[in-house]
Amino acid sequence: MLIKMRPDATPEDIEYILGRVRSLGLATHVSEDHGQTVIGLLGDLRAVSEGALSGLRGVEQLLPLRAPFRLASREFRPENRTITIDGVTFGGPQIVVMAGPCSVESRDQLMRTAWAVKQAGASVLRGGAFKARTSPYSFRGLGEEGLKLLAEARSATGLLVVTEVMSPEQVSLVARYADVLQIGARNMQNFELLDAVGRARRPVLLKRGMMSTIEELLLSSEYILSNGNTDVILCERGIRTFETYTRNTLDVGAIPLLKELSHLPVIADPSHATGKASLVAAVSRAAIAAGADGLLIEVHPDPAAALSDGPQSITPQQFERLMQGAREIAQAVGRTI
Amino acid sequence: MLIKMRPDATPEDIEYILGRVRSLGLATHVSEDHGQTVIGLLGDLRAVSEGALSGLRGVEQLLPLRAPFRLASREFRPENRTITIDGVTFGGPQIVVMAGPCSVESRDQLMRTAWAVKQAGASVLRGGAFKARTSPYSFRGLGEEGLKLLAEARSATGLLVVTEVMSPEQVSLVARYADVLQIGARNMQNFELLDAVGRARRPVLLKRGMMSTIEELLLSSEYILSNGNTDVILCERGIRTFETYTRNTLDVGAIPLLKELSHLPVIADPSHATGKASLVAAVSRAAIAAGADGLLIEVHPDPAAALSDGPQSITPQQFERLMQGAREIAQAVGRTI
Amino acid sequence: MLIKMRPDATPEDIEYILGRVRSLGLATHVSEDHGQTVIGLLGDLRAVSEGALSGLRGVEQLLPLRAPFRLASREFRPENRTITIDGVTFGGPQIVVMAGPCSVESRDQLMRTAWAVKQAGASVLRGGAFKARTSPYSFRGLGEEGLKLLAEARSATGLLVVTEVMSPEQVSLVARYADVLQIGARNMQNFELLDAVGRARRPVLLKRGMMSTIEELLLSSEYILSNGNTDVILCERGIRTFETYTRNTLDVGAIPLLKELSHLPVIADPSHATGKASLVAAVSRAAIAAGADGLLIEVHPDPAAALSDGPQSITPQQFERLMQGAREIAQAVGRTI
Amino acid sequence: MLIKMRPDATPEDIEYILGRVRSLGLATHVSEDHGQTVIGLLGDLRAVSEGALSGLRGVEQLLPLRAPFRLASREFRPENRTITIDGVTFGGPQIVVMAGPCSVESRDQLMRTAWAVKQAGASVLRGGAFKARTSPYSFRGLGEEGLKLLAEARSATGLLVVTEVMSPEQVSLVARYADVLQIGARNMQNFELLDAVGRARRPVLLKRGMMSTIEELLLSSEYILSNGNTDVILCERGIRTFETYTRNTLDVGAIPLLKELSHLPVIADPSHATGKASLVAAVSRAAIAAGADGLLIEVHPDPAAALSDGPQSITPQQFERLMQGAREIAQAVGRTI
Repeated sequence: MLIKMRPDATPEDIEYILGRVRSLGLATHVSEDHGQTVIGLLGDLRAVSEGALSGLRGVEQLLPLRAPFRLASREFRPENRTITIDGVTFGGPQIVVMAGPCSVESRDQLMRTAWAVKQAGASVLRGGAFKARTSPYSFRGLGEEGLKLLAEARSATGLLVVTEVMSPEQVSLVARYADVLQIGARNMQNFELLDAVGRARRPVLLKRGMMSTIEELLLSSEYILSNGNTDVILCERGIRTFETYTRNTLDVGAIPLLKELSHLPVIADPSHATGKASLVAAVSRAAIAAGADGLLIEVHPDPAAALSDGPQSITPQQFERLMQGAREIAQAVGRTI
Repeated sequence: MLIKMRPDATPEDIEYILGRVRSLGLATHVSEDHGQTVIGLLGDLRAVSEGALSGLRGVEQLLPLRAPFRLASREFRPENRTITIDGVTFGGPQIVVMAGPCSVESRDQLMRTAWAVKQAGASVLRGGAFKARTSPYSFRGLGEEGLKLLAEARSATGLLVVTEVMSPEQVSLVARYADVLQIGARNMQNFELLDAVGRARRPVLLKRGMMSTIEELLLSSEYILSNGNTDVILCERGIRTFETYTRNTLDVGAIPLLKELSHLPVIADPSHATGKASLVAAVSRAAIAAGADGLLIEVHPDPAAALSDGPQSITPQQFERLMQGAREIAQAVGRTI
Repeated sequence: MLIKMRPDATPEDIEYILGRVRSLGLATHVSEDHGQTVIGLLGDLRAVSEGALSGLRGVEQLLPLRAPFRLASREFRPENRTITIDGVTFGGPQIVVMAGPCSVESRDQLMRTAWAVKQAGASVLRGGAFKARTSPYSFRGLGEEGLKLLAEARSATGLLVVTEVMSPEQVSLVARYADVLQIGARNMQNFELLDAVGRARRPVLLKRGMMSTIEELLLSSEYILSNGNTDVILCERGIRTFETYTRNTLDVGAIPLLKELSHLPVIADPSHATGKASLVAAVSRAAIAAGADGLLIEVHPDPAAALSDGPQSITPQQFERLMQGAREIAQAVGRTI
Repeated sequence: MLIKMRPDATPEDIEYILGRVRSLGLATHVSEDHGQTVIGLLGDLRAVSEGALSGLRGVEQLLPLRAPFRLASREFRPENRTITIDGVTFGGPQIVVMAGPCSVESRDQLMRTAWAVKQAGASVLRGGAFKARTSPYSFRGLGEEGLKLLAEARSATGLLVVTEVMSPEQVSLVARYADVLQIGARNMQNFELLDAVGRARRPVLLKRGMMSTIEELLLSSEYILSNGNTDVILCERGIRTFETYTRNTLDVGAIPLLKELSHLPVIADPSHATGKASLVAAVSRAAIAAGADGLLIEVHPDPAAALSDGPQSITPQQFERLMQGAREIAQAVGRTI
């Protein structure tokens, strides 16, 4: 259960409520949303008398919350959450396109890609400095050197930067360079990491695990939200199925469903979802038509030479054509890119 | 291997080739494609000398065919196959919308739905007379009575009719009433049935099995094609995954992939793919944006009272709004509805 | 709902009940189980007054049936169903081993295999005469010629014969030669075929579809049972998952679960479940340890030359070793082979 | 590629090789296996001349390694790896049973369970102090307090202790109390954590991710092995499939397959694999029959009151019966418990 406090509730009101709830043997978590305090109750709720609580000073509403996720739910917040960073808004009428190489490989590779995607209309540069690789013998990224190159590309082009963080101790390092912290699919249920980015003051791009249900994705976002970080962007990036022609299967229905269940922005990653360059543009159009608030696209100046994810990376020229098609779909659904 | 005969090959040329091939211990299948004969070789091909065959009179080309499917492949036929029935063309610039109830329940229900979907822009009426139901205790359809109602609705509205056929012996009965024979997902690998509709002179709508790969779908289409019926429409209708919020998961990437691998028209069924009325319109838009040649939508005047598939059926009013959104996406990808 | 009639209920009692039920607008299905009649009610049950029905003459019990499957449930029949054919009993203390080639290829191949598996302790010969193949260009079986060879092997060795039937019109032909009619995984939801074998007087081996849930398997068995054929053997043969090292994944937990939910005998098919000869013996032991009532194993005198399923077929020598291991496990769980 | 050094190779020999390899622009990883040094080469191997390397002093063998995993492969080490801790050996003739509650909840709960499982024949106590929970609102474990209770139970009963570690910074803390570090399914691809336990001097129990392939499991073990920790125990704990009657599906074929591909010990977790207490004993027997080297079982004195995993926990009485059945199967496959 959640207790939504009135905007004019005083710190004393809040303390009083917390004391009452804790005296019932329940734990609490407190978060703030646009100046409004929300108290979550944690534990065996059978002892709670709703009547007694709802009459207390400063209480606006008690939310019974039928869904297992709470702070992420539309019930809790009916209107869309928007997240604005340096003039770029996620979850608003504009579709935000994030593009760049899978891995940062060199200054030249990164700069060429950054300028190319900017010119084609992207507003965020993606690129991995710390890489989660299935095999320990694969290229695992340039590390901090890669972060520095991303920051340099940011200064030069004005693009925002999103990059992956892989462990709690990396969070402060990555947050020094990146505008958005990415949690990769393999770490969607790395709960210590979720707690850590929940405590950071940076928006988080949370990718759905390849094996995770929509409910699990929303519960993972709940870890971040309940630590006080309200800026979470959800990403559908394809799930693992029996099909082997494609790397994964984009769950396109998850896009409108997440928008129905949650107020958080939802983007799609057609590169990982298909694993095939020839399908990326069509699936990007589909994602926007289904209501996605953004795209995450792998672009590489020379996909055949890429150190990772070559088969699904598109060239800057292909990206430009993709953007044209995406723009027409965006317009058809009343949005812009 | 396939032998493509020249358009001017004579019956004697063809007979001669068949005799040669059979004398090598191979079986053959013969099909015709716009007046051009194609001979498929079946069996242990190691004994075949390509040089000897390619020099014979009337032979245009020998196709080694790397894909396991042959007649369905783009290699075999680079240009799109179009299928035209009474002025409605599948696989052309226009997107064909098929809509109607899951089951034919009564004259009133069918007629109301038929007029409503026609008015909103559908050109084909769907509706099940023989129903494949998981439980023997569920409503299994009105049978021939249902077929007669479909034919009546066809006469009244001018809509074409697509309906499911469930066994070889039903084929001639259903073909008497329907313009398109539907093979349901559960029967995608009912090979006796595929052979039977392959021998029928009616276009076939072949639904992907809920856990069938793209290759298996194309191989099932190959059963129909190799029996001489070239008019096959493929349908992506969602695959079974671990996700439980939705009934199935639309494999939206399968749409451009099927168009890349095959020349056959590809449509999508957002109703079965999602199982949730609230998601049908968004997923329909996504399918068109991804390149689908048509849609198959369940519409019911009173979904709550439907004898089957109520939760995923939309009302005529919702269908009208869906069509408006679909039209805008169609236009954005240079097509019409 | 089911109405179980008393063993001494007269035909008049039964007719009376049927009339009453039909007058409420409900359909009925009647089956017999060891001389006891069971009437299933089909349709909208809200109109039925249980009080009124349970008092009628000849009625033993009304079963509300919480599971969606009914005649297959333990609720309906608490004790194990046993099926005896010529001295071989399925579902009793002895584990029944069925073995033989995937396809009947020739008299020599079949006879050598039949004698070998008999000597090693099998009591049923398996072998396909009509083959369900993903591609129309693969070997599709010898047809009736194959059935005759099976019958010949039966006469020579005394083994029972199980073989697949693929369409309603094949049922009477196959039933002329086979002791057990096999429904293949791809036809588990070919409902017309299920109805047809339900009307036949032959035990049915029903394989779980590669994409089918346990509930769907039991509902498919319900099609057969509700047509009056009580002799159904369920077969777990591996389900399709994301794993690609093996052909399928044996759902070993399904074996005790099916025994818990249903009274029907349950066997396992480790050959299709793994697709790898080297794993068949270990998985056979696992199936017996989990409670399987039998095994279905592909054995071929020369797997490398097999026309189908070579990689998962074992040699007669490997089969002999498999049987030794299986016997030890059978003994450990208090059974015999 | 791997370079296996001779047992009598000197540190100078090794240094010389490392220098040579690095001068080619390759990275290296060095590990030791029973006093024998193994050098792995990492990077673009096309520049390497095998002839030049194999002639160098101290080199025993160059291994081309066809599998993507290396140190874990049977190719690299044909004989079984055994891991012995305080007299308990994993991977030897004895099957090691690990049992205990999902979560450590209290001293009383833990002690009662520990004594009960010891008496029934378990040699390792399991119990979570840090819990990976899908929802942040679920019980997340007692933390260090739980570790202390585990250590206390260890002292009292003589059982070894296995418990989960969830982040790199927890490793040294958990290693202070536990004999075996468990990596949970959700962290199987938490690569920073794998690196960290690879550097620890404690055996690691690595659970297969719920949607991870066998190859990915072995590559994750490779992370640990390539950091120098050779003591890895693999655990099949059920994979996620479309089936909903059970929580997961035990991939029983993975047990013999892992033993075929790798030299590492393989255990099974029937509790998570099924999620249903009534199926745990049968699936335990199946796992042993398939060749498992051990079992991991959830036991709780009062499953209905458990703070986590109640439905799949069995009582001490049920565990005792499970052990009797398991012992009989172990004997049937020539092993002991």
